[in-house]
Amino acid sequence: MTAAHLDAGLLSPVRAGTPAEQAVGDTAWLQAMLDAEAALVRAQARCGTVPDSAARAITRLARAEHLDVRALALAARETANPVVGLVSALTALVTAQAPEAAPYVHRGSTSQDVFDTAAMLVARRALDPTLTDLHTIADTLAATAAAHRDTVLAGRTLALHAVPTTFGLKAAGWRHLVLDAATRLRRVRDSLPVSLGGAAGTLAGYLQHAGPDRTGADVADRLTAAFAAETGLAATTLPWHALRTPVADLGAALAHTTGALGKIAADVLVLARTELAEVSEPAGTGRGVSSAMPHKRNPVLATLIRSAALQVPAQAAVLAQCLVTEDERSAGVWHAEWQPLRECLRLAGGAAHTAVELVAGLTVHPHRMRANLEATGGRIVSERLCAVLVPRLGAAAARTLLDDASAHAAATGRPLADVLAELPRLDGVLTPHELAALTDPSGYTGAAGALVDRSLAPNHSHTGVEDGHH
Amino acid sequence: MTAAHLDAGLLSPVRAGTPAEQAVGDTAWLQAMLDAEAALVRAQARCGTVPDSAARAITRLARAEHLDVRALALAARETANPVVGLVSALTALVTAQAPEAAPYVHRGSTSQDVFDTAAMLVARRALDPTLTDLHTIADTLAATAAAHRDTVLAGRTLALHAVPTTFGLKAAGWRHLVLDAATRLRRVRDSLPVSLGGAAGTLAGYLQHAGPDRTGADVADRLTAAFAAETGLAATTLPWHALRTPVADLGAALAHTTGALGKIAADVLVLARTELAEVSEPAGTGRGVSSAMPHKRNPVLATLIRSAALQVPAQAAVLAQCLVTEDERSAGVWHAEWQPLRECLRLAGGAAHTAVELVAGLTVHPHRMRANLEATGGRIVSERLCAVLVPRLGAAAARTLLDDASAHAAATGRPLADVLAELPRLDGVLTPHELAALTDPSGYTGAAGALVDRSLAPNHSHTGVEDGHH
Amino acid sequence: MTAAHLDAGLLSPVRAGTPAEQAVGDTAWLQAMLDAEAALVRAQARCGTVPDSAARAITRLARAEHLDVRALALAARETANPVVGLVSALTALVTAQAPEAAPYVHRGSTSQDVFDTAAMLVARRALDPTLTDLHTIADTLAATAAAHRDTVLAGRTLALHAVPTTFGLKAAGWRHLVLDAATRLRRVRDSLPVSLGGAAGTLAGYLQHAGPDRTGADVADRLTAAFAAETGLAATTLPWHALRTPVADLGAALAHTTGALGKIAADVLVLARTELAEVSEPAGTGRGVSSAMPHKRNPVLATLIRSAALQVPAQAAVLAQCLVTEDERSAGVWHAEWQPLRECLRLAGGAAHTAVELVAGLTVHPHRMRANLEATGGRIVSERLCAVLVPRLGAAAARTLLDDASAHAAATGRPLADVLAELPRLDGVLTPHELAALTDPSGYTGAAGALVDRSLAPNHSHTGVEDGHH
Amino acid sequence: MTAAHLDAGLLSPVRAGTPAEQAVGDTAWLQAMLDAEAALVRAQARCGTVPDSAARAITRLARAEHLDVRALALAARETANPVVGLVSALTALVTAQAPEAAPYVHRGSTSQDVFDTAAMLVARRALDPTLTDLHTIADTLAATAAAHRDTVLAGRTLALHAVPTTFGLKAAGWRHLVLDAATRLRRVRDSLPVSLGGAAGTLAGYLQHAGPDRTGADVADRLTAAFAAETGLAATTLPWHALRTPVADLGAALAHTTGALGKIAADVLVLARTELAEVSEPAGTGRGVSSAMPHKRNPVLATLIRSAALQVPAQAAVLAQCLVTEDERSAGVWHAEWQPLRECLRLAGGAAHTAVELVAGLTVHPHRMRANLEATGGRIVSERLCAVLVPRLGAAAARTLLDDASAHAAATGRPLADVLAELPRLDGVLTPHELAALTDPSGYTGAAGALVDRSLAPNHSHTGVEDGHH
Repeated sequence: MTAAHLDAGLLSPVRAGTPAEQAVGDTAWLQAMLDAEAALVRAQARCGTVPDSAARAITRLARAEHLDVRALALAARETANPVVGLVSALTALVTAQAPEAAPYVHRGSTSQDVFDTAAMLVARRALDPTLTDLHTIADTLAATAAAHRDTVLAGRTLALHAVPTTFGLKAAGWRHLVLDAATRLRRVRDSLPVSLGGAAGTLAGYLQHAGPDRTGADVADRLTAAFAAETGLAATTLPWHALRTPVADLGAALAHTTGALGKIAADVLVLARTELAEVSEPAGTGRGVSSAMPHKRNPVLATLIRSAALQVPAQAAVLAQCLVTEDERSAGVWHAEWQPLRECLRLAGGAAHTAVELVAGLTVHPHRMRANLEATGGRIVSERLCAVLVPRLGAAAARTLLDDASAHAAATGRPLADVLAELPRLDGVLTPHELAALTDPSGYTGAAGALVDRSLAPNHSHTGVEDGHH
Repeated sequence: MTAAHLDAGLLSPVRAGTPAEQAVGDTAWLQAMLDAEAALVRAQARCGTVPDSAARAITRLARAEHLDVRALALAARETANPVVGLVSALTALVTAQAPEAAPYVHRGSTSQDVFDTAAMLVARRALDPTLTDLHTIADTLAATAAAHRDTVLAGRTLALHAVPTTFGLKAAGWRHLVLDAATRLRRVRDSLPVSLGGAAGTLAGYLQHAGPDRTGADVADRLTAAFAAETGLAATTLPWHALRTPVADLGAALAHTTGALGKIAADVLVLARTELAEVSEPAGTGRGVSSAMPHKRNPVLATLIRSAALQVPAQAAVLAQCLVTEDERSAGVWHAEWQPLRECLRLAGGAAHTAVELVAGLTVHPHRMRANLEATGGRIVSERLCAVLVPRLGAAAARTLLDDASAHAAATGRPLADVLAELPRLDGVLTPHELAALTDPSGYTGAAGALVDRSLAPNHSHTGVEDGHH
Repeated sequence: MTAAHLDAGLLSPVRAGTPAEQAVGDTAWLQAMLDAEAALVRAQARCGTVPDSAARAITRLARAEHLDVRALALAARETANPVVGLVSALTALVTAQAPEAAPYVHRGSTSQDVFDTAAMLVARRALDPTLTDLHTIADTLAATAAAHRDTVLAGRTLALHAVPTTFGLKAAGWRHLVLDAATRLRRVRDSLPVSLGGAAGTLAGYLQHAGPDRTGADVADRLTAAFAAETGLAATTLPWHALRTPVADLGAALAHTTGALGKIAADVLVLARTELAEVSEPAGTGRGVSSAMPHKRNPVLATLIRSAALQVPAQAAVLAQCLVTEDERSAGVWHAEWQPLRECLRLAGGAAHTAVELVAGLTVHPHRMRANLEATGGRIVSERLCAVLVPRLGAAAARTLLDDASAHAAATGRPLADVLAELPRLDGVLTPHELAALTDPSGYTGAAGALVDRSLAPNHSHTGVEDGHH
Repeated sequence: MTAAHLDAGLLSPVRAGTPAEQAVGDTAWLQAMLDAEAALVRAQARCGTVPDSAARAITRLARAEHLDVRALALAARETANPVVGLVSALTALVTAQAPEAAPYVHRGSTSQDVFDTAAMLVARRALDPTLTDLHTIADTLAATAAAHRDTVLAGRTLALHAVPTTFGLKAAGWRHLVLDAATRLRRVRDSLPVSLGGAAGTLAGYLQHAGPDRTGADVADRLTAAFAAETGLAATTLPWHALRTPVADLGAALAHTTGALGKIAADVLVLARTELAEVSEPAGTGRGVSSAMPHKRNPVLATLIRSAALQVPAQAAVLAQCLVTEDERSAGVWHAEWQPLRECLRLAGGAAHTAVELVAGLTVHPHRMRANLEATGGRIVSERLCAVLVPRLGAAAARTLLDDASAHAAATGRPLADVLAELPRLDGVLTPHELAALTDPSGYTGAAGALVDRSLAPNHSHTGVEDGHH
């Protein structure tokens, strides 16, 4: 077997073929490391400590297609990271093609500067399509919520019918959560920093090479700023080799993302159950086919999204744990971040890409919602009856009467309104007409419509940090 | 055994007796639930749907000391949450002491509104002292960084001496990370929301009780705003029974907090090792005593902090996982949040309280740092020598010469400068004096001083989200 | 607030008041540490290095009620563990009451020996009722499986009806998984070891106090054996201060336990849904009551069990992570185990205790199962029809015919058999009578009955490790 | 970018190029699925329900090189698993080359039977080299422990020197833990089962195709046994589509494995520190080279192992969590297992492979151990002095004297023996000669030698479950 087939996506269909998968593959990561090397030389050229021609030559040659990613992976066992081998290979390439530029490859630098900067570039490249997908999802859900503002279905708590709600409110809630995730993800995306510290975070190598007329402040300020400008990443106050906020932040925001999408998937999987059948997943050629059962159209999109949502929190926990890292660079803690970070990025990105299709094609079945609402013969509004009867009968008597009538209705399968209408105790308290009105589920959706309106109103959009979950 | 001793802190010394522990205990949680019930009635009174006198009576009686927390815990097994029993007990109390107010207890409400609002109150009460502690730590570390701006010690990567750095830069990095945590924690703290949704998130019960002349928008807007005002928490656009951003956010920020403090602890534990002895923990009566070994003064504060840092990411992962929750209220996912949320709050709060003492009393031993720097006979600056010699000898020759000289110095225990001074190849390239200067570790701290200055400058303080990790 | 109410179970109803909760509380842990101290002196007395009278006196006085558990918790902050304070307090007590025994308290010992031995005692005391509960559950489920061997219900995959199965097979599967857990838990329980190593795992202190005529082998063999005999725990080949297999094993087996119980809960929560209503939780006074909705009887037992199942894997992951521990005793990694170990023990024990009640009182509704089976009008046996028709029509034609007929049946709500009966293509292939028989779900339960029989047969019982999951 | 470079090992050097990586790659997984399909047909042929010639033809054609793994990965998005596409592709292949065999491809089967059986085959193929590596490590460590039975070094607790121990005891402990892991891993390996259940775990499809003269018991017993025989996996009592013990067991045992190896790595990283320098990693061409610092030889093997040990517990926690799975096959929970299972297998296998090299080449520096032992001027045996002096001076007086003398020795840098020798209080109590002997660290290693002997004795080898951690 060659390296080609170590991971072609076979075990992770949620991200197979999605933009995030491409953005975080080994070749993409290799290119990002080369981009970081090239940007570093260009930044030094900006600062006047490296010839422009060298920066141009190195930039031109720093292409993943010139290197052998598998060979670099194997070589990384010798040094615990892939940058040492990459620098050798790139230096050889530059020496062969532009020898005068060779001394400037990786000059003053350290593996972690290159690797971490590349990780941030990779993260940005994976987050951009993910954010686009999240906003597409939110827009679609806004339309869904508006369209189903008054579509009544059973509100369910602890697996049982509770009181009625609307599908619009449910969709508005999904959208809200997706926007929460997008807010958190964008905040992290916009602050992804370059990594620039040198061997132990003092910038000493860069300063040494910058020459005797440069001060530490020069290098700390100007070189960092130039590197940031060349990469489009943020500058940092301090080197962060051992201050792992950017990586932990990514983990937290990506876990939020799959959590939000996982909530949608969890709801779809409930509503799509054969007995409920209130929504269906989009059908397509081959989509949802079972290998054994011709009649099934499996909710595969929700399944895929849920599979991602079950994995990412654990991966993100590794990243949070890796904040606890010793010395100026850890022996092992840094290295433990790499694969979980990639996995967070591509699972979240894949889940978002999958959810675009899920929400766009979701078919809603209001008649099934209505039919299911009737399943309890009006008992779904017992809360309302309680509210009406308590002031008239007293709390204890009202509760007992409703408990008994509910139990009787459940046992006999008769509508609660009918059972109540026969009770002598309610003679003169409520007419059959009033009872019928009170037990109509569509009359007891509370502020659902107003909540949908409010959440879709422009002034409640998720534009800032403050209303992250308002 | 009584409930009194289910958990008196015996297995979690990092938080025993700290403010956060008190703020999140069962009695505190019970009081917060009562506070939520009382605030809800007052909010309804503000909206004119409940008499002020009832609100005052309920507020007066809603005191934890009137209830039996263990009895409520046991009763919670019947209903899967403690609010049902609490409402019964509170109603009985009000009925006995202010019967006219009894109908207004928990009116229109649902267990989750009360529990979640209480959780947010508890969180705020635990976060306040935690944030204070984090800022105290940052202030102390600012002073440490300034005082040791130029105290040189070995920068260590992959467990080995790399190049020199300064203790000031290390302390500045610690401070930076603590401020990152504080920024994240404050952001969450300032947006902790009330929970108000009623039985299934439609506010139907509240609207029903508000009377026929109120609209859904009235309740959604005014009652939510009034409840927020009464609790001091934030209002929300949508009920969040099944949109668990606030809880996931708490987990993420608290994991960041113990991660930041855990980084400090990890470094202290390295530097305090017998062979390094570069720092000592504060000594106090009995502090750090071993049960067996009179000579030891164990680094117990760092030990305690690290113990918290190893636990919180897993607890926070549970909270992130709980974003994936079905229906209008989950059967089990909601319930799984409670203990992990408490554990995150009190471990992070305890760790912060412990770290205040650690950083305030940390003794720094510059002479030990200096002595350890000498351990490699100058090889710690081989990077610098390489930078100097490559332009003069060529890259390959310089590297070979330094590799050989380093190996020889290591094998013989002689200073690298002496070994190099004897090499014919360096005759006329570097004088012994130059070699001595180049191999002085204190001359190769790069931009460490400038970085400390920059990170302590007021304009780089962590005042906003944007510079979360700049 | 006093320590009394730090944790009275309010946030963890799954274990409030259960045997496991009592077995792992702080007072129980304190008593176990005292038991360990007393057993250690008795073991030394057995070896002839301590007077019997001292062992008796210390054993008599080593009672938790003589000590202040909260004071010890607070004192533990000074030394990072509660044993140092406990030894002081116990020594003071013995000095006061039996002064001649005082020198023998904790003689030659170290905190970790006492703490870890106590942890193993606590674990055993919590596992015993847990194992009893698991076997009760398995016995109940055996009866359930036998009683419902032929009760047909819809087999569900990816949320949809797949093919029929039986409730007996489902219950047999639950039992199987519970026995898997019990096998793993018993294996760990039976090997819980004493901890005996002295200050750094060499037994030097014990040997020193044993006197000059004892050899290391004497102490390693005889004292360990005597300590094991006095505690009822297993002896060990090597001290395990830094070899944390026993704790990691507990975590893994307890996560398996809540996983197994969580699978039952997950299924009950599906089957109890209002629309399915195939099972009901046991009803009791107040059990399952909603604070707002009189008609509901919430599945609270399954809810509680699921809440535990969502927490334990993360706690167990902390314990697995703590295998990575440095030196002869870690600064922090050891300490991070304590609370998660307790949490695993009491959540699993509480879940098992809760599940006893769940499975014993679970009401099965075969008529609802039958009604739901009809929901797809026979499409649930499309696999069977496919198997029958492929040889007669060819694979492609059969599949197309069934796809079309299924879609038509679904769209019109007619039984699949009726739709098929009208197809000219099936004239002479299948009679309406054959079609009716083929589409009867109860005729297509495969080997379900045989599987139930096999799994309940005595020779397939889970008596050994070998058939852990056979 | 093609799929070729999604993962070539670049971010996970701990497993790049190791046997486990090859064994679990996508191509290997594809081949295992094909092996499962072929074995299933052969098993049916054994039972006489499929022609032998068809089984032979399908076996011959079921080769990964005939299929396009990337195409299958992409197709898996349509059905949420890769088996549906694989069955199509394999059927097309068989139809083209051996059309009479085509109807027997996947007959009566379901995706999960094939996928899970393949997963078990993959696991076995990855565990075999891993177990070999673990035993090689244990053998090497046995030799190390024997060779260094009496090599004295500082026992370290809470980061500080505690009392002396031996490197032999440390190595014996490492070996012990590795054997614990091997015992657990072999136990799981030997019980890896086939998966055989059909569409919903009733075997109905297999039974249907087996023909009317077969009973459910026939299929349950004979077909399962035949499938087990053809794959070399274990037979099972019940289908385990939703009873996930095998996968959870793998996670637990693999987390134990990286935990055990991680303990070795953690110790090596401490002992390799520049200031301690008690061990060195094996040097090789390029091994441990820094990109910036010529003098460094980084402990890269321990670093890689630690990086794996930090990731696997979280992955294993996902697998434990996935025990909680609804219905006859979950929508998402099953799918969430795949990538974490692979990651556990290859990280553990890679770590084991890396550790073979680490322990084989580890260089021990007894002179550095001895030198470091002197660092505290004899205070490392204060426990012993305490034991000697307490009976002569009384506990309080002895402790005070030693505390004062230790503090004085520490402050002045003088040997503790010298400070004690000058104390009038010890005149006539201990001679200077006795003091010198008592403070010689090599005289206070307790039972370390005996423990090493005992742990290496054949009768204490880890041959059974019982002495899992004895």
